[in-house]
Amino acid sequence: MLHRYKLLISYDGTHYAGWQNQPHDVTIQSLIENALSSILKEKIHIFGAGRTDSGVHALAQVAHFTLAQPLPLKEQRLFAALNGLLPHDIRILDVKEVSPLFHAQKSATRKIYHYHLWLQRPISPFYRLYRHYPYEKINLEILKQAAACFTGTKDFTTFANSSQEGSASKNAVRTIFRLDVVEQEGGVRLEFEGNGFLYKMVRNIVGTLLDVASGKRSLDEIERLFLAKDRRLASMAAPARGLFLVNVDYPENLLNSPYAKK
Amino acid sequence: MLHRYKLLISYDGTHYAGWQNQPHDVTIQSLIENALSSILKEKIHIFGAGRTDSGVHALAQVAHFTLAQPLPLKEQRLFAALNGLLPHDIRILDVKEVSPLFHAQKSATRKIYHYHLWLQRPISPFYRLYRHYPYEKINLEILKQAAACFTGTKDFTTFANSSQEGSASKNAVRTIFRLDVVEQEGGVRLEFEGNGFLYKMVRNIVGTLLDVASGKRSLDEIERLFLAKDRRLASMAAPARGLFLVNVDYPENLLNSPYAKK
Repeated sequence: MLHRYKLLISYDGTHYAGWQNQPHDVTIQSLIENALSSILKEKIHIFGAGRTDSGVHALAQVAHFTLAQPLPLKEQRLFAALNGLLPHDIRILDVKEVSPLFHAQKSATRKIYHYHLWLQRPISPFYRLYRHYPYEKINLEILKQAAACFTGTKDFTTFANSSQEGSASKNAVRTIFRLDVVEQEGGVRLEFEGNGFLYKMVRNIVGTLLDVASGKRSLDEIERLFLAKDRRLASMAAPARGLFLVNVDYPENLLNSPYAKK
Repeated sequence: MLHRYKLLISYDGTHYAGWQNQPHDVTIQSLIENALSSILKEKIHIFGAGRTDSGVHALAQVAHFTLAQPLPLKEQRLFAALNGLLPHDIRILDVKEVSPLFHAQKSATRKIYHYHLWLQRPISPFYRLYRHYPYEKINLEILKQAAACFTGTKDFTTFANSSQEGSASKNAVRTIFRLDVVEQEGGVRLEFEGNGFLYKMVRNIVGTLLDVASGKRSLDEIERLFLAKDRRLASMAAPARGLFLVNVDYPENLLNSPYAKK
């Protein structure tokens, strides 16, 4: 019987080449796999809920791995041992056995990303790695109106890059349930909640929102961008440093282990 | 007529050998002096309100410099030019002409320092450079009782290191108006407000508070420590990373330039 374990992970993405394993770079996935393999004394492969790019942060990334036998130590012990081996900018928040049918990416039903903007001068030294600080003056009223154009079920082809493997999703229809502009210290955060996000979709949308809110593009252009289905027409992606993966939701029944004592 | 200018400065102290110039290290003072000297085309020396140690941060450090002539450019322009030259972990928040009698250190009447503790497991990756996370379990009730023992006007000899130049203040009597334990995300912050602080005094007090709140020392020992006037009896200084210089107050009349138009 297979045993599947869910990891909850927080990381500062500043110093890494993103989540996903790369041939010549240090990634968050590779460091966690190395730590797990070293503790469990077998080669462990983990699957993440979302492949965050270089410089993107996570408050609660989710990943899973599978063992042919039950974990040879308590989940709490694995949690402490992993944090003992990992650098301090990557922290395991939780380890939990789940259903063997659980898949960190494929089972996800809802994700939340936050994109943080610092709109004062100068940028706080303490937020320099965690906020985008656009040089243009941003009109918050127009930013809110522009954000409202992105909610609902739409074809996001214009706002998706093809991934590094060239495997752009054929179906680019996604639903954004909520895109809220929330004021906070130094500026605002954009809260994206959706059923799924295409490669670079959040950063491409933020880039376009900022062009509209700074007056470089008009509000009406957004509708035309959706209809054109052409990535070359959207604005440049906003920088990675402002983006945080905040939450991933799963169906309740997949979050329980079938081996758990009743 | 001399012209004196007050700088308000925020910095992340992680990567610096503290505020004060050192022969072989990069310090915050030296970087700001270099930037000022380069813009004003003369050798500028600045005086800081407090010499923060390596790894200590500042939300609002104050410094001053003096010119024989009025500033050859607008204060707003100098502000922008300095931030253009300085690294992003040091930001000038304000430049303002003040009274020629103003002195960043000697005129200060009141200072606020915050010391931040993370008391959960694990430490958040985003706070790893800005919080101390003690390994011992901290009893918050005892921490508050211990903190109350440090307020008032006392001789803080036991809690002061002699400075690097060996010039320990002869008079170690200081007044702490307030030492509050304030709950915040992940733990608490200790808010110190006083008329002045001796070298390493805040970190030495925090080290002693943590020893008491973790049960290594008893509450009654604090009174005996004050009476002994012996630095060797107090606990080890708490780490630099948790400490922030938050505010420095001055008499109102020194904050105005005598040359300002009425």
